[in-house]
Amino acid sequence: MRKLEDVLRCITPLDSTLATRVQRRLDSLTKPRGSLGRLEELALRCALITGQERPAVEQKVLFVCCADHGVSAEGVSAYPRAVTAQMVYNFLRGGAAITVLARQFGVTVHVVDLGVDHDFAPKLPGLLQHKVGRGTANIACGPAMPRTEAVRAVETGITVAEDAIRGGAQLLGVGDMGIGNTTVATALLAALSGIDPEELTGIGTGVDDAGRRHKVTVVRQALACNVPDPVDPLGTLAALGGYEIAGITGICLAGAAHHTPVVIDGFIATAGAWVACALHPAVKERLIFAHRSAEQGHRHVLAALEVKPLLDLDLRLGEGTGTALGMGLVESAVRLLNEMATFAEAGVAEDRV
Amino acid sequence: MRKLEDVLRCITPLDSTLATRVQRRLDSLTKPRGSLGRLEELALRCALITGQERPAVEQKVLFVCCADHGVSAEGVSAYPRAVTAQMVYNFLRGGAAITVLARQFGVTVHVVDLGVDHDFAPKLPGLLQHKVGRGTANIACGPAMPRTEAVRAVETGITVAEDAIRGGAQLLGVGDMGIGNTTVATALLAALSGIDPEELTGIGTGVDDAGRRHKVTVVRQALACNVPDPVDPLGTLAALGGYEIAGITGICLAGAAHHTPVVIDGFIATAGAWVACALHPAVKERLIFAHRSAEQGHRHVLAALEVKPLLDLDLRLGEGTGTALGMGLVESAVRLLNEMATFAEAGVAEDRV
Repeated sequence: MRKLEDVLRCITPLDSTLATRVQRRLDSLTKPRGSLGRLEELALRCALITGQERPAVEQKVLFVCCADHGVSAEGVSAYPRAVTAQMVYNFLRGGAAITVLARQFGVTVHVVDLGVDHDFAPKLPGLLQHKVGRGTANIACGPAMPRTEAVRAVETGITVAEDAIRGGAQLLGVGDMGIGNTTVATALLAALSGIDPEELTGIGTGVDDAGRRHKVTVVRQALACNVPDPVDPLGTLAALGGYEIAGITGICLAGAAHHTPVVIDGFIATAGAWVACALHPAVKERLIFAHRSAEQGHRHVLAALEVKPLLDLDLRLGEGTGTALGMGLVESAVRLLNEMATFAEAGVAEDRV
Repeated sequence: MRKLEDVLRCITPLDSTLATRVQRRLDSLTKPRGSLGRLEELALRCALITGQERPAVEQKVLFVCCADHGVSAEGVSAYPRAVTAQMVYNFLRGGAAITVLARQFGVTVHVVDLGVDHDFAPKLPGLLQHKVGRGTANIACGPAMPRTEAVRAVETGITVAEDAIRGGAQLLGVGDMGIGNTTVATALLAALSGIDPEELTGIGTGVDDAGRRHKVTVVRQALACNVPDPVDPLGTLAALGGYEIAGITGICLAGAAHHTPVVIDGFIATAGAWVACALHPAVKERLIFAHRSAEQGHRHVLAALEVKPLLDLDLRLGEGTGTALGMGLVESAVRLLNEMATFAEAGVAEDRV
């Protein structure tokens, strides 16, 4: 709990002192004012988050947080539970979607085992082994985990993020892997946002309509038997979350505390981000929401958070695939701010306005 | 005219023979079916355009087509006409937005002078010098150029694209630079699409509301004095186009003829693309529309073309900035198709559906 409290104490409201200077530079670059649209907003935000007039985001680290879920026993996923561990191996061998995209965008991937129901050999390269348990308990029958485990998983996220930042990471990203975790994220987000499970529940990895209706029932059951209190984000996370979701919460908090932007993936990652935002009001402006997932609840959750994602490509894979694309856009924004010539440098006439 | 006719003859309807095989591969990759959304569609389309089950798009070439416009005399832009040539130098020195993004995405930029009102020194590295004239005539008073010049500018686009493809380019992209060219593109697209100039006319590089109303008047005047016939795309291009827009038309045609996808930028590039689509019905499915520009008419034009752009980031700069980002996404899509492991290769259990 000490580490979590320390990090929360370090998070301060975004200092906008630099805004005028950065905006002046953006306006001096050889383009009509504002013509790079959301990339200009993004560049400004990176400057404010990092406190640097010329931020740097070359060193990019993405955490794929992995864990299993007791609720998978309810038959809520199109895939068997063993797929979580199988996909961890696929990440480590570079055959998964996230590893392909990470290679393209020069992103270092750390796969984090926070609670996969599988024994990995010690010291597998690329795998950070921080198992809190071998999967959570079934949220349809009671809490996912004790509060102490939720804190431990959040603090694991803080630790891996702080290690990466200490190692030079300038831009963090999060993704998830865990069979059954759209159900968990739906329950958690329903509790935190107050949005009805019927609206929030989507097809996840691809269940059919009967499967979706079954998920709604399971989510309602989880809410009924846990009676979560949204005023207590950690308690809600313990009741309805997952180890990987808690890890994502920790990474968001560490990024916010250490002036490092964190790029958020789709529905599951947003659940972890929501808990972080609920724990400290100044976290949200440090997060960059990469995309709007095709998972039906994501648009409602983003609207409730009042954030506008960068991309809308009907992705619904997780793993941090949207995050990797979003990190590419963040790099674009920052490069434009840093590398474009000004009107004066280029000898280009300014507008007559 | 011979080169244009030859290219048009080479364009055939998209052959979808490969579709089943490529879709089968996409479905065999370690992800839920369809979970990469529009990236999967894009990968499939690249396969069909190139005729390759495993297309390659590493060699990426983007043409920034540049020219001046007689209509700039009407005071339709926030910038003086000299900025076109000044920006060419900025492109060549690498200080412009497009050159920054091209570096990030590994895209080779060719700046093409199709009609800039400036004498460039011979053999400037990075500049392809194919001046058709020193700027078009004022469309508010008569045709922009004779039909022969329109053909010459289109054929210039064909030539530079064919040279690039012969040199190994696997993915082409287009962008534009030309003070006054949103006015020209608006007139051209109004004539070709039948959409009212009031709906199509935006703020371009950033004129105020009075400036926008003035642009509408100039566009209406251009339409009234030229009486374009949309059934004759080349005649309409000659009456209301620009040299750079005609060059973009040629690049689209050459890409379509030579099985090479062409990524299209915003409002101006879409005007050139529209002419290419009007010249041959099988061009459109070879084009990839990178983004929806903030220029107000673009959404109407994309809707009329029935195409859905990849990005929506409020860009309104031109130069191919949206194209560069779109080329990054095309590369992502193709890499995922080529580099991801299948369920069998990765030893991951398939879904139970």
